[in-house]
Amino acid sequence: MRLVLKFGGTSVADIGRMRHVTSIVAREVQAGHQVAIVVSAMAGTTNQLVRWVEEASPMHDPREYDTVVSTGEQVTAGLMALLLQDHGLTARSWLGWQIPILTSALHAKARILGIEGKALVDSMMRGEVPVVAGFQGVAPDGRITTVGRGGSDTAAVALAAALKADRCDIYTDVDGVYTCDPRIVPAARKLHTISYEEMLEMASLGAKVLQTRSVELAMKEGVAVQVRSSFTESEGTMVVDESRVLESEVIRGVTYTRDEAKVSLFKLMDQPGISASLFGRLADAGINVDMIVQTNAGGDGRTDMTFTVTRSDAARTKAILGELKQTLGYDALDIRQDVSKISVVGLGMRSHVGVAKKMFETLADKKINIQVISTSEIKISVLIDDVYTELAVRSLHTAYGLDNGTPVL
Amino acid sequence: MRLVLKFGGTSVADIGRMRHVTSIVAREVQAGHQVAIVVSAMAGTTNQLVRWVEEASPMHDPREYDTVVSTGEQVTAGLMALLLQDHGLTARSWLGWQIPILTSALHAKARILGIEGKALVDSMMRGEVPVVAGFQGVAPDGRITTVGRGGSDTAAVALAAALKADRCDIYTDVDGVYTCDPRIVPAARKLHTISYEEMLEMASLGAKVLQTRSVELAMKEGVAVQVRSSFTESEGTMVVDESRVLESEVIRGVTYTRDEAKVSLFKLMDQPGISASLFGRLADAGINVDMIVQTNAGGDGRTDMTFTVTRSDAARTKAILGELKQTLGYDALDIRQDVSKISVVGLGMRSHVGVAKKMFETLADKKINIQVISTSEIKISVLIDDVYTELAVRSLHTAYGLDNGTPVL
Repeated sequence: MRLVLKFGGTSVADIGRMRHVTSIVAREVQAGHQVAIVVSAMAGTTNQLVRWVEEASPMHDPREYDTVVSTGEQVTAGLMALLLQDHGLTARSWLGWQIPILTSALHAKARILGIEGKALVDSMMRGEVPVVAGFQGVAPDGRITTVGRGGSDTAAVALAAALKADRCDIYTDVDGVYTCDPRIVPAARKLHTISYEEMLEMASLGAKVLQTRSVELAMKEGVAVQVRSSFTESEGTMVVDESRVLESEVIRGVTYTRDEAKVSLFKLMDQPGISASLFGRLADAGINVDMIVQTNAGGDGRTDMTFTVTRSDAARTKAILGELKQTLGYDALDIRQDVSKISVVGLGMRSHVGVAKKMFETLADKKINIQVISTSEIKISVLIDDVYTELAVRSLHTAYGLDNGTPVL
Repeated sequence: MRLVLKFGGTSVADIGRMRHVTSIVAREVQAGHQVAIVVSAMAGTTNQLVRWVEEASPMHDPREYDTVVSTGEQVTAGLMALLLQDHGLTARSWLGWQIPILTSALHAKARILGIEGKALVDSMMRGEVPVVAGFQGVAPDGRITTVGRGGSDTAAVALAAALKADRCDIYTDVDGVYTCDPRIVPAARKLHTISYEEMLEMASLGAKVLQTRSVELAMKEGVAVQVRSSFTESEGTMVVDESRVLESEVIRGVTYTRDEAKVSLFKLMDQPGISASLFGRLADAGINVDMIVQTNAGGDGRTDMTFTVTRSDAARTKAILGELKQTLGYDALDIRQDVSKISVVGLGMRSHVGVAKKMFETLADKKINIQVISTSEIKISVLIDDVYTELAVRSLHTAYGLDNGTPVL
């Protein structure tokens, strides 16, 4: 098999941790695999580099930001190649411009346009371990780019696709994807497999395991991704096509996020075009509206409207709604941040009835009021009062038979 | 004028020092000059990177060493470009591979093969300040090289030659070339100008101001070099062709080095070919022999031989002479490290008689015994007992009329 192994910042925190990584790499090589690895910067390094950049120039040129910040991964790549050599393997470092990994010129947030995989494949064919500096590429004009913080998983998946790797292992600080956040639900179980679609929903609904873009890309390119930890020996979770998902639960995970704000407009004019001017204006401002519910259309030509936005957009949303007061003709505006969004996700929802009913009954049983609901083919989300977050998550985890030791539904 | 300004580690020690450098650059730009700058790593950074490399792999691959260590200058180049932008100038960083600065593949000690100056000249023509990451280049196979510690002055001079610059200013932690080390001779004077030949002798005889190779290259390429400090406003010392040297002293400097060891062989066989086998064998081992004197050829077929080697070669020299004991047939071997070499340097020596006489008389007057002598066209060196170093240097400095306030000879 051909593998791409990606090691995040905590896996390469210092020389000692990096030396441990060499034993993981050696194990895969000894198993007969072709291995390429992708490394992040040593923990803390990127923050130090970013601080220097901000100190040098508050409104900094993103091209120079990339020149400075990309050195973090360059150092790790060189050191890791040395450690692998010291461990008896043949290894060499590869920087983004040496491969090359071609990206757009949108510095600090570049998108990968293409990866020339030949040199790395040739290297692996010769029995070498290429050590790729993650997070970076080269723009059409030959300047160093970075894919932006949070883009390093995506870059690893893109590399795996370019190298036609059989698997991309993302070594992170959790050892897999769980049915729920184990800090809230101690009975949460690690999943052996999860489909791209489910992982996408869970990632965008608050599970911080993988970056959303990396999952989208893996799905598009058909790259099998494994989430695992360099701190344990145990196998992680495979993120694969739904045809390869082994487990059979209807619901695969319960997630929550406190990242939403609830916006309510009261006594809005109930006329055609009002919604369009409201949501069109917010979209123009780059504000993403998630859950929407319209209520109390009481025949008086007035209606109430509630929707959610990301908390960091709450202040801008308020300002825009202020400007639109005349146009929309609403009576009152209320923005609340004491809400959380609870979601249940599972492919099985498509073929099983009663999933929503069980969710509503479970919450009602705990006297938790549902403020807004939104659904997709494989998830149901509800907005509730923030204080009930843990209770709701735990109750749903139990209700859907996800607790460790529970027989599968 | 077109200028290349090179800033060493103490000039870019931290963001504060770097910000000060921007005002130096701005002053030159405001004077109407085209300016390119070359920067070293922030003080301490290179040492940290080297320590990591050594920790990762004691017998490290020099290619990876270069990948890691070159990041020090990459960071400074990016930060300095940002600081210059923040100061209102147009600036961008250039890495060795982006220019490119082509070097040999002798990693960690690469030699510059050629510099493609066009992109940087175009950049300066547009009114930009190119900020070049010093110390680095790119090998024919596209991997990053470094020119080796102590090669950064040379790289700056090579860049100045490639850009056809009118002057290369080396900003270092001393503000010029002095007639003697001011720590030993407080009356030492800063020279306004010095010839390449004199600077070469002084650099190789212990004056640590400029690297020998950088002076050789400046002489070959006819680059005017100025040694100056970023900590003072005062002008430094110009290193130029002898036709442009303004001062008229016969002797321009007194130098000393404690870097020598004295090797004495007693009762050596006085036969043809003995010297050849002795010094040939040392040369084969890469040991540089400096001063040589043969004495006491008393007609008994035996002679004594004394010479000096670099102190770090003393142990290997001893081992080789041990192996050669049969061949050379000497009675006894003595290696002493309690010696120092004192030199006087000056172009005027070529046309003035009595320079050597004055040296020997001055030392004799202070009862300092001369153990070995060597001369070249523009310098005289003597080996003396280490304990007399300061006394000898000070006495010679006075005797040749170099003390501050003394009328020129």
